[in-house]
Amino acid sequence: MNIEMIRAAAVRLAGHARRTPLLSSPFLDEIAGRRVVVKPECLQHTGSFKFRGGWSAVSALDPEVRSRGVIAFSSGNHAQGVALAARLHGVPSVIIMPSDAPKLKIDNTRRLGAQVVLYDRDGEDRDALGARLSAERGLTLIKPFDEPQVIAGQGTTGLEIAEQAAAEGITNADVLVCCGGGGLTSGIALALEAEAPGLRARPVEPKNFDDVARSLVSGRIERNQRPSSDSICDAIVTPSPGVLTFPIMRRLCGPGIAVPDEDCLRAMAAAFTRLKIVLEPGGAVALAAALYHPDLIEGEAVVCVASGGNVDASVFRTALEKYGE
Amino acid sequence: MNIEMIRAAAVRLAGHARRTPLLSSPFLDEIAGRRVVVKPECLQHTGSFKFRGGWSAVSALDPEVRSRGVIAFSSGNHAQGVALAARLHGVPSVIIMPSDAPKLKIDNTRRLGAQVVLYDRDGEDRDALGARLSAERGLTLIKPFDEPQVIAGQGTTGLEIAEQAAAEGITNADVLVCCGGGGLTSGIALALEAEAPGLRARPVEPKNFDDVARSLVSGRIERNQRPSSDSICDAIVTPSPGVLTFPIMRRLCGPGIAVPDEDCLRAMAAAFTRLKIVLEPGGAVALAAALYHPDLIEGEAVVCVASGGNVDASVFRTALEKYGE
Repeated sequence: MNIEMIRAAAVRLAGHARRTPLLSSPFLDEIAGRRVVVKPECLQHTGSFKFRGGWSAVSALDPEVRSRGVIAFSSGNHAQGVALAARLHGVPSVIIMPSDAPKLKIDNTRRLGAQVVLYDRDGEDRDALGARLSAERGLTLIKPFDEPQVIAGQGTTGLEIAEQAAAEGITNADVLVCCGGGGLTSGIALALEAEAPGLRARPVEPKNFDDVARSLVSGRIERNQRPSSDSICDAIVTPSPGVLTFPIMRRLCGPGIAVPDEDCLRAMAAAFTRLKIVLEPGGAVALAAALYHPDLIEGEAVVCVASGGNVDASVFRTALEKYGE
Repeated sequence: MNIEMIRAAAVRLAGHARRTPLLSSPFLDEIAGRRVVVKPECLQHTGSFKFRGGWSAVSALDPEVRSRGVIAFSSGNHAQGVALAARLHGVPSVIIMPSDAPKLKIDNTRRLGAQVVLYDRDGEDRDALGARLSAERGLTLIKPFDEPQVIAGQGTTGLEIAEQAAAEGITNADVLVCCGGGGLTSGIALALEAEAPGLRARPVEPKNFDDVARSLVSGRIERNQRPSSDSICDAIVTPSPGVLTFPIMRRLCGPGIAVPDEDCLRAMAAAFTRLKIVLEPGGAVALAAALYHPDLIEGEAVVCVASGGNVDASVFRTALEKYGE
């Protein structure tokens, strides 16, 4: 895994992934006590950065292999990113989702062209099901984060940040990244190492699901104890960092930050009022850290990667009800 | 008023106004029955396209004149656009607002550096108040739409659309523009005439406030009868098109479209779910026309200019409650 793979992914993504802008507001700077810019990956195709990794992985396959199709396990953003990337390449995709996933997400994934296969979380072995389908049909598995071409795709976000931050005159900053398995964080960290040495990536996680932050402290892969249903940040709750992503984060990232769910709702309302973007709770952890935990930030400025916006209307309404102006 | 003024404004705005992206979603294409792209000016500084016109006008002033400051009448987006443009130029601004304007808007305008002067809608003569302040302090009035440098600034949106649509392969399209006094619509129309002759601007207004559509039919300036408080689209309700903007629209624009308020709320919810952006009701009329009145569209594709996102949380919650998925 290296910077050349990220640069190659950027070439493959050009004209397909959206180059998201950098957003800012003087009102957010005031709250944070320093300059804040936001990289809104909620505006990416399918509403999250996952399209980058999906496109990168699908486009990197040998055409003969690709033509047989791809398969992914996901109840959320990775499912939609892979489904759309496959459809745009004209190849089939199979997405294995838990049968109790939100109906809207299942429906979206189907409408993006995927064959959705549902499994019972309690009774069925997801991996065995995936292995059988892959073997029968020659499908290639696209893992959500611990896969070099996926990390390379997410890393293109970092190349854009390096260029856009420089254009804004930002040369010393913490780059806060909403972090699940670490695909986005490690990809951005590698890109910044090469292109913007004054910018340092830092993982941000939901409180009680700070496996990456704890792993960075202990120096080995730590796991979360609680079930993921305990957090509203479903999009970025994973059991532990990946075996590929963790060594990269350990070498390059600053300390992790964990924020409570309520701060995510507050940050969602602030992004609504000040930036006019829609964030999902997991996509708001980085902005929450910048706004409400400024004492933990080390850089002169802060770049917040807002990883996605796929949130149910009811959750968003709650955020506005509690914290909207 | 000509294309060279718009090109000159684009040079002055470069590096100051945000170049907003073009957004899209296959789900919106499905609803509309054709390709839909959205130009989200809600992501512009101060949350609406008005910053472009404000910056253009302030930056075009003779430095000596500018240094004495500017003045504007507005209870909304124009106020914030002018206030921020003045502050970034380091010159004072006075914004005259009705005393019953929403507290948040008054507060925002103040926090953007303006001196806010409140007047009583019933008892005081707004224009006399403005004239007195201007004379006393040598302030330059920045009108909201019927002012060449303001039209030139708004027209830079059209230059960007021409370039971005071409990059997307869109060569034949209706460009639907949320329309109040016609500054944005006429500026975009001039830009498209020069740069993208296959794209045609069309004003979109709230039902019962379709003064521009009716003026285009009758060939002379028509007025709205109802008080503006009858529409939720406050940002784009004006009594009549301008004497500068109307002849441009008459020469270049396709027929106007009027959409009911409920369609605006539906379009706000669709933009939330599919594009992850926040639109105010008046900023959603163009998207509403594309999605829910496809029979009125003539082009192969449709470009919707989403003019702003400065909406109260309570109104946005209502849109999600009624039409959110």
